[in-house]
Parts: sequence; C-alpha cells; structure tokens
Amino acid sequence: MAGFRLAPLVEGLPRAIPFVGPETLERRRGRPFRCRLGANENAFGPSPAALHAMTHAAFDVWKYGDPENHALRERLAAQLGCRRGNVVVGEGIDGLLGLLVRMTIGPGDAVVTSAGAYPTFNYHVTGFGGVIHTVPYRDDHEDLDALVEKAHEVGARLVYLANPDNPMGTVQKPGAVEAALERLPDGALLVLDEAYVEFADPAVVPDTDIEDPRIIRLRTFSKAHAMAGARIGYAFGAESLIGSFDRVRNHFGVNRIAQEGALAALDDADWLAETLAKVAEARKALTAIAADNGLTAVPSSTNFVAIDCGGDGRLARAMVAALADRDVFVRMPAVAPLDRCIRVSAGRHADLAYLAEVFPKALGAARTAVAAHG
Amino acid sequence: MAGFRLAPLVEGLPRAIPFVGPETLERRRGRPFRCRLGANENAFGPSPAALHAMTHAAFDVWKYGDPENHALRERLAAQLGCRRGNVVVGEGIDGLLGLLVRMTIGPGDAVVTSAGAYPTFNYHVTGFGGVIHTVPYRDDHEDLDALVEKAHEVGARLVYLANPDNPMGTVQKPGAVEAALERLPDGALLVLDEAYVEFADPAVVPDTDIEDPRIIRLRTFSKAHAMAGARIGYAFGAESLIGSFDRVRNHFGVNRIAQEGALAALDDADWLAETLAKVAEARKALTAIAADNGLTAVPSSTNFVAIDCGGDGRLARAMVAALADRDVFVRMPAVAPLDRCIRVSAGRHADLAYLAEVFPKALGAARTAVAAHG
Repeated sequence: MAGFRLAPLVEGLPRAIPFVGPETLERRRGRPFRCRLGANENAFGPSPAALHAMTHAAFDVWKYGDPENHALRERLAAQLGCRRGNVVVGEGIDGLLGLLVRMTIGPGDAVVTSAGAYPTFNYHVTGFGGVIHTVPYRDDHEDLDALVEKAHEVGARLVYLANPDNPMGTVQKPGAVEAALERLPDGALLVLDEAYVEFADPAVVPDTDIEDPRIIRLRTFSKAHAMAGARIGYAFGAESLIGSFDRVRNHFGVNRIAQEGALAALDDADWLAETLAKVAEARKALTAIAADNGLTAVPSSTNFVAIDCGGDGRLARAMVAALADRDVFVRMPAVAPLDRCIRVSAGRHADLAYLAEVFPKALGAARTAVAAHG
Repeated sequence: MAGFRLAPLVEGLPRAIPFVGPETLERRRGRPFRCRLGANENAFGPSPAALHAMTHAAFDVWKYGDPENHALRERLAAQLGCRRGNVVVGEGIDGLLGLLVRMTIGPGDAVVTSAGAYPTFNYHVTGFGGVIHTVPYRDDHEDLDALVEKAHEVGARLVYLANPDNPMGTVQKPGAVEAALERLPDGALLVLDEAYVEFADPAVVPDTDIEDPRIIRLRTFSKAHAMAGARIGYAFGAESLIGSFDRVRNHFGVNRIAQEGALAALDDADWLAETLAKVAEARKALTAIAADNGLTAVPSSTNFVAIDCGGDGRLARAMVAALADRDVFVRMPAVAPLDRCIRVSAGRHADLAYLAEVFPKALGAARTAVAAHG
C-alpha cells in the first residue's frame, strides 16, 4: 500500500498557516470572546439592501453562480471607469492573490514585500516556490523606495504593497505609488492590495492607467462592505493580465449569494457613507482609549488602529494575552519594531466601551507579566 | 513599460475553459432559458432548515467563517465514522480537485481518466503541467480495469473515477472500486469523485478504509443538498493526505453562509429522503420522455439522465441546439460514442412537462438539421 505521493514542492512546504482563526482560539480557551476586534472585520454589518439580496438569493442557491460574474464585473467596470475585461472577481483578495502568484511565480522567482506585511501573500509565494525578499518598514509606513530598490537588486517578479497598510494602518503619500511604478525594474508587477482603500482619504488613492501592465490592484467586499464571510473580492488591471486569470481560476468558484450581495452593496452608497463615518468615530474612540492609558495610536486610514503599547514585542504579546483573558480578541504585528503595537479593529460602541473598561487592567497585567518573566 | 510576465507553465496553458455557463448562453441568445436542465443542479431546492440557517447566517456575514470548518468537519466525521482530521472542507469538489492536483502533480506527471469524463479535473491537471492519459468508456460505464491497466502503463500519480459517473449516470458494480484499489500501481492515488453518490443505491457505494493511502473520496453539497451556488464540498481519506491540504488551501476560503447551510442540511434527513424520491420520479419521467420519442435512456444513478438520441454526435449536438431554440438548456458528452446522448437534469414536474411538450418538435428539427447539413 504505497499510496499517494506529494509533489516535491508541496512536500517541502512548512506546515505553518498564516492565521489561527478566532474560533480556534475560542475552542482552545474553552469560552467565546465577548469582543471580536482582531480580524479587522466590520461589525457595523452589511447594507440592508445587501442583506435583503443575500437572503433572497439563498432561495436560488440550488443554481451555480454565473461563472463569468458578468453583472458584478459590469457594475465594477462602470464604477472604475474601465471595461469588464479589466476586472476579475474571485473568492476574496486571498483567493485572487493565490491565483496571481500561481500565474507569475515559478520555483526560485524573487518576490519583494515588507517585513511584517500580509502573511497570506507570503504563504502563496512560498506555496509556489517563490523566494521572498523583505525590506523593513520606515516610520510605520511601507517603504516604497526600499521596495523598488530591493526589486532591482533581486530581479523581483512581484512587489507587494498594501495601501492603506495592514497591520499598521498607514497610507502612502499622494503620487507615491505612481512614482514608484516608473522606477520598477522591467518585468516586475506591483501588487497593490487595496483591501482597506474605502476607509482612506480619496485624495491619497493612486491614479493609475487601467492598461498599465506594471500594476494590478485588488479590492474586497470584506471590509468596508462588511461581507468578510461571503468571500468575494476583485482585481483590476491590464486586460491581458486580467484575462489570464481565466486560465487558472475555479470558474464556478464564487458563491451566488455573495455575487448578489456584492451587487446590492455597491448600489447602497448611503450605507457605505454611514459605515465610513462610524469607522472614523471608532478610530477616534480607539485613539482616545490609547491616550487615556498613556499610550499612542498610529494614525490610521483603515478600520483598525495600531496602538503602541510602549514597550517591545514582549509587552504587546502580553497585552494580547491579557485582553484575551478579559474576552477581547485582538492581534498584533509579527515583526519588530511593528510588534510594539497591538492591532485593534474599529468595533461597535458597546465593544469599544467594554474595551475601554478592561484596557487599564489588561495593560497593568501585561506590564506585570513582562516584569516577572523578563 | 515591460510589465508582468506569466510563469512559463501558465503562459503555455490553453485558453479553453471547462464549461460555458448557462448565463453566458443566455446573454448570447438574448433571452433566458425557461428550463435549466443542463448543469445537474437540483431544482427541488435546499432543505428549509438549510435555507433558514443561511438566511440567519447572512446577518453574521461581516465575520469570516471558521477557517478550520470545525463544526462541519466534526459533523461529517461522525456521519462517515472517521476522525475530523480525515475530512477537509473546501469550495466545492472543483476547488478541492484543484488543490489535490496541485499537491500531487508536477510538470510531466501522468494522470489517468476516461475519455469524456469530467473536464474540470482535466483542466486542473493541465493547469499544473500534468499529462492526461485516457481510456474509453465500456458500455457507458467507466472501465475500471482499463483505468488500472493504463495507470500501470504510464506510471500514473492520479487515477480519476466519478462514481456514479458524469456524464453517463452509470455506477460501478459493488466491490469493483475496492478490487481496483488492490491492483493500482505503487504511488498512484484513486480520486473517487462521489458528487452524485447520494442518488445511488447505498448497496453499491464502495466500502474503503479511511486510512487507506491509495484513495481519496470527494463529495459535495451541490447536488443532493441543492446548494450548488454555495460552493461547499468535502474530501475524506488518510489523515496524512487530508492534513496536507492545510499547506496549500485558502484557509479562509469557505463562505460562512455555506458552512451554516451545510450543517443544517446534514441534519435534515427527511428532506434528503424526499429529494431522492423526487429525483427518482424525475428520472422515470425523463426515461418515459425518451421512450415516448422512440429513444432510450441510459439507466442512471444520479440526478440526470443521458438520453441516446439514436444517431451520432451531430444529431445530439443538433438536439441540444433545437432544445435551446425552445428555451431548454441541456448539455451533452463531448466524446464519441457517449456523444450520441444528451444529458438532462432531473428537474421539477413543470420543467419536465414542458420538456415533454417540446421534445418531439426539437427531435424533428434536429433530425432535419442533420439531414440537411450532413
């Protein structure tokens, strides 16, 4: 019974996964979290119109969704001012990043990202045999100059930039992305992850040519549209690049309920505006909680805030644990010096009121733990 | 502006996609189908309990689903009599097949399937550089002996078998799959696609050891549970193989609404039994429609029936077109001699009543078209 053999590339992959889900943490703890503020989910919820569309679509779920995502791509193209062929819809940005890496990266190919940036992107790169080269953040921002310089140095095929950034919440200056494009090495593609773009000042959103073959931009319904559980996102760029997704994607892979919800969400501009206002309020509240505890928050263009706990990674790790002890789920960056911070999602008023209540005790416990264990 | 470069493997892939969706056909036609009987969807719809769970879950769609699919895997493991670690949940069988091929097939690796079997499996194999070897069907059944023999001949890493079969609807004899396992070459894995297994006589369902490293079995909520649009399926097998999916899968890829719907569907055994009875009735009705038109239907263990149109591929193709002209969507096998048939899904009473009405005219038109154009 010899049985299956894994392909050598997969056999050699690490068993580590990018994120342990909050449900897994709850099972390990033996009790649920009271506040779910660790995954940058949008607790203000989807548009009532999207909810209506999704509950209605459930009755048609016996049908496969349209494998071309035609109506949604038409709608997105109209909004973006491009053609349907410039837009591909997929199972969230995570799924699209996996396809993009598969399309462009073979074993040994170089990829550039920032140390401490999105682990799921790195997971895909490693998964297809790519080699990751990192540059450090600079003043809590991804360092575009350094990314471009490193791309030249290693002959990168992909350069990853989240803008606004995760996990720090910062954003690039107006014109910076456009300028970086001009300095990219030949054959490199800038992967612009805009999961949080709706939360940013529109004035800082890059203005790039849809047919520019040096950039692909990815967006999602998980964050501003509060549909993380629906698994639907999109990428847009040059038609020749976008069209190539058809060679590798799971054509019937997008959930029909998600397709209908996304369409309805795009049409509810009022709800989006209300959401953005609520998120802005929540960011202020998180910044105030930090200040009330003598800490500083990194200015954020997203629906989360990185709070500098005033120590190093040990203190922030202890703070994540101390908040979990008080039933609050948050995460933190993995790499120094970003890991002096905890990352807290812009939650509802009740969540943040509870956080404000337990924060001083948690911080005291975290400081005590670090003092005791070094 | 050199821009992106595709990886050589992807650059060389064909642009053909496995299936053109019915929505695309409708857009080309400029009008909708009246009867959607081509994609083996289950128009009897999901369990009311599943519908309730899905509409309820929509309100929580701002949260990501549990990336471990823990509750659903526990439930499936209890039903299958195995451990949670023997079960992986993914974005339908299509998504799981893609991951499995990625895990086991590198460029040049040999894969065996039947000529005319599931094109989406072949799409994945080609997509990862595998080389497909086929054997013909035998009496409208996949020929297990020939598949095993070919696997020895070419040193296959994967051997694909749909049981019950798609597109013919036939099923292997009791014990045949178990016997074939014993004759597989070393290092080969039998990929047993059981998308339609709930529709088959339980007595013919293979009985294999969950830890047998020579087989993986795949099932779905798309067919008997009528949740095709939800994109959720599962695979089960040896824990070491199943665990390897964690190295490559999109961990947060399964829709939260689908997770909840699937759990509820499994608990509604009454609805499943009713569905199976309705499908059996519909198969009888389709067989009667064939007989009423002087044609024969291939005995089916699925929710579709292959109807032999009494000619070759030209006549069946003309029949697919003639039915489309009358607003009925059906498909047909792609390879001779299977392509003498059209493949019609077990639809609702009203769908089949309309089909019965237009079938004679469509058959007449198809025969005329073939006579005219040779």
